[in-house]
Amino acid sequence: MDAADLAEPVSPLRTDDAAVAALRVLAVSGLPGVVVQAGHAYVVIPASQVLRVALPRYVLDDPALGRVWDESTADQLASELVGRSVADLVAALDRHQLGTSHVVDRDATVVQLAAVMAAAHLPLVAVVDHGALLGVVTANRLIRYLLT
Amino acid sequence: MDAADLAEPVSPLRTDDAAVAALRVLAVSGLPGVVVQAGHAYVVIPASQVLRVALPRYVLDDPALGRVWDESTADQLASELVGRSVADLVAALDRHQLGTSHVVDRDATVVQLAAVMAAAHLPLVAVVDHGALLGVVTANRLIRYLLT
Repeated sequence: MDAADLAEPVSPLRTDDAAVAALRVLAVSGLPGVVVQAGHAYVVIPASQVLRVALPRYVLDDPALGRVWDESTADQLASELVGRSVADLVAALDRHQLGTSHVVDRDATVVQLAAVMAAAHLPLVAVVDHGALLGVVTANRLIRYLLT
Repeated sequence: MDAADLAEPVSPLRTDDAAVAALRVLAVSGLPGVVVQAGHAYVVIPASQVLRVALPRYVLDDPALGRVWDESTADQLASELVGRSVADLVAALDRHQLGTSHVVDRDATVVQLAAVMAAAHLPLVAVVDHGALLGVVTANRLIRYLLT
């Protein structure tokens, strides 16, 4: 059993797609993250990080301050995303997450999959074959396989 | 709309539960993480981190080395979990994740929910009412709400 066997197909987003397209893909797919094709590379944006670009720095540093943000409503959060691109979502990832690979080769082992997920805090990993995206393996899928 | 409105019920794990119980809850619930009750506190273990305790340090530092781990099979990974407890899974979380709150109050705003998710890399947040667990809000649930 290798990464290719566990992968499920996804359509990657492009960096010039609108940021809200990433939210729609998450809502429709039910997957815990999206894959972005950035040139010849693939980057995963976890669902937990897709709203990062919409949040002021002081709220990320101390989430309790989200309460005192004057317009801490859903409308306000959504409006912060207007005019942003998927590239902006990628750029807003934290340095540790951006500095770690989000990709494994098609013949990667379950240990490599688990390690990439754990090291980069990714709920899913992109699986590639000679640079082409085969699909993704989610953490839940890997865990279900381990229990069988 | 506040955190309590968006929360879905879950049963928390206890720290003395077997580690494999966390994997089973993930497999059955389909949720992207589990909630652990640790004394009067609640901690979230993301699905991406539940196998962390089973991985050697050098593989976490460089996932590509997972390939050269002699027995990089599913059986080996699963056997590393035998005898481990949920407390061991919590202890294996990285320092940043353990040092950040995983909980919001029932009247937390959507901005606070998004900030806790983004800051602590959590695919779900625990919602409490005077210390009692009301449920969880997943990142996907929050995003679906924002799109409505």
